[in-house]
Amino acid sequence: MDNSNNYVVIMAGGVGSRFWPMSSENMPKQFLDIMNTGRSLLQQTVDRFEGICPKQNIWVVTSARYADLVARQLPDIPKRNVLLEPCRRNTAPCIAYVSWSIKTVNPNANIVVTPSDAFIGNVTRYREAISQCLKFTSETDSIVTLGIQPDYPATGYGYIEADLSCASPTNNNIYRVDSFREKPELEVALRYIRQSNYYWNAGIFIWNVNTIVNAFRVYQPEMAAFFDEIKPVLGTPREQEVINARYAECQNISVDYAIMERADEIYVYPVDMGWSDLGSWSSLHSRLPQDQHGNATVGANIRLFDSNNCIVHTSGLKQVVVQGLDGYIVAERDGVLLVCKISEEQRIKLFH
Amino acid sequence: MDNSNNYVVIMAGGVGSRFWPMSSENMPKQFLDIMNTGRSLLQQTVDRFEGICPKQNIWVVTSARYADLVARQLPDIPKRNVLLEPCRRNTAPCIAYVSWSIKTVNPNANIVVTPSDAFIGNVTRYREAISQCLKFTSETDSIVTLGIQPDYPATGYGYIEADLSCASPTNNNIYRVDSFREKPELEVALRYIRQSNYYWNAGIFIWNVNTIVNAFRVYQPEMAAFFDEIKPVLGTPREQEVINARYAECQNISVDYAIMERADEIYVYPVDMGWSDLGSWSSLHSRLPQDQHGNATVGANIRLFDSNNCIVHTSGLKQVVVQGLDGYIVAERDGVLLVCKISEEQRIKLFH
Repeated sequence: MDNSNNYVVIMAGGVGSRFWPMSSENMPKQFLDIMNTGRSLLQQTVDRFEGICPKQNIWVVTSARYADLVARQLPDIPKRNVLLEPCRRNTAPCIAYVSWSIKTVNPNANIVVTPSDAFIGNVTRYREAISQCLKFTSETDSIVTLGIQPDYPATGYGYIEADLSCASPTNNNIYRVDSFREKPELEVALRYIRQSNYYWNAGIFIWNVNTIVNAFRVYQPEMAAFFDEIKPVLGTPREQEVINARYAECQNISVDYAIMERADEIYVYPVDMGWSDLGSWSSLHSRLPQDQHGNATVGANIRLFDSNNCIVHTSGLKQVVVQGLDGYIVAERDGVLLVCKISEEQRIKLFH
Repeated sequence: MDNSNNYVVIMAGGVGSRFWPMSSENMPKQFLDIMNTGRSLLQQTVDRFEGICPKQNIWVVTSARYADLVARQLPDIPKRNVLLEPCRRNTAPCIAYVSWSIKTVNPNANIVVTPSDAFIGNVTRYREAISQCLKFTSETDSIVTLGIQPDYPATGYGYIEADLSCASPTNNNIYRVDSFREKPELEVALRYIRQSNYYWNAGIFIWNVNTIVNAFRVYQPEMAAFFDEIKPVLGTPREQEVINARYAECQNISVDYAIMERADEIYVYPVDMGWSDLGSWSSLHSRLPQDQHGNATVGANIRLFDSNNCIVHTSGLKQVVVQGLDGYIVAERDGVLLVCKISEEQRIKLFH
């Protein structure tokens, strides 16, 4: 099958402060092999599109400070495809920038937008979902999101409310979206789970480049005007200079607020694919292999005694012995050590 | 005062396995600055004799593998004064070896024997005690030990039973020893404490070289014969070769068993000088400055949250954050990390 119109946009600008000291502003989570697979999360994100999208159609949007990391980790991605934000402006400007850029090289591009730092346990289901969605958006002017089958009433994710009575005529795995819901209170999340037509929003979107550009024109006319104005420099030697000078003019807004919650033709493809945003030590702990005492380890020569439900994650240490800990994070990177109760992990940002 | 007959023998052959990973066989405790004073315990041991004993009269007995460490840490000590044991044979052969050696250079030597890795909080009292004992042994054929005023019923130390009714006629701080007692059961230790004439044996002895050599002749005639036999090579280029070949012939026995428990003219100088053998993480913890929550730290940039009664001791880490630990050791050296309950410290040897 011809996949030359398939594009992937990887958003790789996150700073990963919740995983300190494993991740840091100099080395955010997406650039780390946090699961000890031999590939960073960014590299794994690229790997999942093998056969779906040619390497030269993969684009990355990241912070200027991570340009070298991206180039080193993704040597097969053309340098022109790595867009460097001089400042953080949330996902809407980021997506507008890359959409306008891709449109200049392929006005028929069919695009998957994905975070760079998520875990997907069932890659086969993921690839099947992505393939179906790409086919769908190549035939319609629709925006599709992947909807993650929730396995607990999470309060940390946004939810997508699907109208399960209204499947698409061309693909009966794809349903109309009734609404996007922000991170709910626990009671509300419990109701979502019971109703079974609510899915986690994983920030994975599929659309045709014309669909998303038109959506910006309708719902974010100022942002669209900005990128129309600078369009002549995209792909030229002057691009970075102009972006550096003017990108901060863009409104700081997420694509969910800017487009998703306003647009009409939005669909969801529900999928149960062992997804995790790996947004915290506890979520990493739950995705790593565990010993019979619930301990997960990544690192050299780690031994635990009288310990349960711990995650020990080290990169610079030669040997680690842990005795008598229950429910703790022991994490080290570059000579920085954290020992902290998993239940207190939301305070980690305050510690460094 | 002329102190040219005063000698110090520092026994520095211990391997310090209880302080792993801070200490190791390659770097035992005596060579470490474990209290963060700027000087290793060995160097502090030497420093305490400033003005009491000339540097050229300080001798060190250690393992051959630590020769470089001793030379580096004690550059002012003559190389000839560093005796290298090819194997461990406990304290009696070690003391015989150095006593015969010192006798060849000064038959009137007045010697203090001391471990290399103890803590002494009140150095003034220590120096006063040592000075009085040296004077005493220069005038009599007595063996004197320092007796540490016990502050709890320790079961890990040997005790010295003093006859407090029998002070020496020449120094009323010095008493006859009734007996040496091995490490007692707790009940026995409690009785010792109540009786108040029992002192901890810190392994600090003072004697004239002729007194100790004669004691070996009487109570360890084989060992004395051995050193008489090899005496012609002591101080010559052949010494190390002969020691390497034959030192293992010596009986593996402590000086306490070999001499102290058998000899008659034994005295004790009781002293309360804030002594600790620093034999465990908990004893180190109790001697280090503590914050208001009972936490003691040695190392760079260590911060504790919600933690009590911990000792955090790091040397290779740039930053440490500890949250939610009560009564733990967090120790790192050379890329090896230990997290362990202080109450389980006796198991540390099993962990590495």
